[in-house]
Amino acid sequence: MQWYQQSCAKPSQKSREAAEQRQQQLTKPTGSLADLEQVAISLAALQDTPRPQLDRPWICIYAADHGVMAENISAYPQVVTRQMLQNFMTGGACISVISREYDAHLDVIDCGTVGEPYHVDGVLQAQVCAGTANFAETQAMSEAQCLAALEIGKHNVESAHAAKASIYIAGEMGIGNTCSASALACLVLDLDAKVVTGVGTGLDQAQLQHKVTVIERALERHRPSLADRGIGALCAVGGLEIAAMVGAYIRCAQLGLAILVDGFISTAAALLACQINPNVREWMLFGHQSAERGHVLLLEHLHANPLLKLNMRLGEGSGAGAALGLIRLACRLHNEMATFAEAAVIGEKLQG
Amino acid sequence: MQWYQQSCAKPSQKSREAAEQRQQQLTKPTGSLADLEQVAISLAALQDTPRPQLDRPWICIYAADHGVMAENISAYPQVVTRQMLQNFMTGGACISVISREYDAHLDVIDCGTVGEPYHVDGVLQAQVCAGTANFAETQAMSEAQCLAALEIGKHNVESAHAAKASIYIAGEMGIGNTCSASALACLVLDLDAKVVTGVGTGLDQAQLQHKVTVIERALERHRPSLADRGIGALCAVGGLEIAAMVGAYIRCAQLGLAILVDGFISTAAALLACQINPNVREWMLFGHQSAERGHVLLLEHLHANPLLKLNMRLGEGSGAGAALGLIRLACRLHNEMATFAEAAVIGEKLQG
Repeated sequence: MQWYQQSCAKPSQKSREAAEQRQQQLTKPTGSLADLEQVAISLAALQDTPRPQLDRPWICIYAADHGVMAENISAYPQVVTRQMLQNFMTGGACISVISREYDAHLDVIDCGTVGEPYHVDGVLQAQVCAGTANFAETQAMSEAQCLAALEIGKHNVESAHAAKASIYIAGEMGIGNTCSASALACLVLDLDAKVVTGVGTGLDQAQLQHKVTVIERALERHRPSLADRGIGALCAVGGLEIAAMVGAYIRCAQLGLAILVDGFISTAAALLACQINPNVREWMLFGHQSAERGHVLLLEHLHANPLLKLNMRLGEGSGAGAALGLIRLACRLHNEMATFAEAAVIGEKLQG
Repeated sequence: MQWYQQSCAKPSQKSREAAEQRQQQLTKPTGSLADLEQVAISLAALQDTPRPQLDRPWICIYAADHGVMAENISAYPQVVTRQMLQNFMTGGACISVISREYDAHLDVIDCGTVGEPYHVDGVLQAQVCAGTANFAETQAMSEAQCLAALEIGKHNVESAHAAKASIYIAGEMGIGNTCSASALACLVLDLDAKVVTGVGTGLDQAQLQHKVTVIERALERHRPSLADRGIGALCAVGGLEIAAMVGAYIRCAQLGLAILVDGFISTAAALLACQINPNVREWMLFGHQSAERGHVLLLEHLHANPLLKLNMRLGEGSGAGAALGLIRLACRLHNEMATFAEAAVIGEKLQG
């Protein structure tokens, strides 16, 4: 049995019930904090404490390039992947600002970008290879490459767990990766390219139609010979950063670390993680519903209801990152609000 | 001309355009931060600066009791209004925790609760009278009482403006006040009670039906003799805390202070403020779409699209308060993200 098939931890039913009981005693109409109550209760179960907290959020950005860029499916050139890694570390990217705002740990891992060897302070070099192959023509990666990418995520989560991270966000950077995520969704859920594929970072309608056609070609090539809808699908049309996120999610669930899923690509990785090891789902919270067309389909399949819906479509873990503030507030309300007894407020409803 | 009819300030088009230009230069796909971009740009116009900030949010909770409680239209007894005022000040209420989380100024003003004279540290005593009259039977308040309540809000906003508050939240506490807000919405927008009225803090279906019937009675009584859909409607079926919020919103717009509107009752007050002085609308941002049935109708009428939709239904300014974190993040992203030039990232899109 491979490591990623091993069983997941179980969220604590006892802590969930203790948190539910506390919520019922706080000075507010029953259920009136709604989604904020539910996220605090869920986190209580995942952190195995009646008093959940968000002191040490951990964000890891997984980066890689995509061979399918040879088909011209993105609005930006491939070199932007590496340029953004530098921007993450020098503090000018969206996720850099979010990390400062919420005092989050931020790792950036190059899982396989295209180009000469390079050094950027703080960017962890873990290149499996110089990007995937063009999945419209061939397998995106070999099984050995896929398993190596899974290991990158596994190791990062082990560091987060050792550092007692309160929650784990896997973000991504990889020009062209909505194309890979769309193809994955089609293969796994048996959907048509045109219902899943969206504009990514900003295609026009003609460019979008071309992207759909490229994904249709890929599906025709890979569907007949697909080994399975887990590792097999990842090897066929996945990305190295997506595979690393899959490994990260699975390891979170095995170690009992709460996951905060980001947008479309992150959710495609979440889908794959659940395909490979279904109980991973129990460890997932969802931060933001993206504007990218396919995201809502993946969320429905995973029965997920993200906290936010801000029409963001940036990647980098930014949607999940934007939800950190609400989750921190939800924890603080859960922990600091007075009970009816403490505040001497009448909590019993009148009978009608 | 009364003070509340005097003209509003104008948001700065120049600062809006400067903020829009900056957003286009930041290291992200164009428009990809979506609602977070828009709120930063809007706040730039309202604060008249290309670099908006949220350093000194100001929250004021307006409290009052409602004569219509004689009709048994709430799940909680009237005494809870005052009990919660104490809870606000001792730090155990939802809005107390939110104020700590976002370093907000918190005022609590008793505009007219029922009961003997009392003292709670920090609660400002500004009682116009001991609650409104039962609007199912008579006018809720006289015009003199309504104008006195408007003045309470006016004065609080003047304090906020003098203290250089970055944004203004008017919250409310008043057992029974969803009944008043629903009746106001019906009178102003000419709607049926049953399409507007919701469960408030938690009525069952029979109790809800009774509440609808009470509001229908009130509408039959007041519609034929309604003086106007502004002050006249407030006097007919309003609340003292709602009138104070109306005064606060109008004064914010006159002094040029950004407003962050909360939930159903707050939005009913916003509706009235715009009825009385339409340009007040330009100073309003919206924090949260409440679970209370009528809220979405009011938001549509005001062409408002709140940042959050968390199914909350608590009052106290808590929905707007929960949005403070996102707005603070939006400002920080706007101000701290690197431009493409600063980060040496290619910002030009490829041509298709």
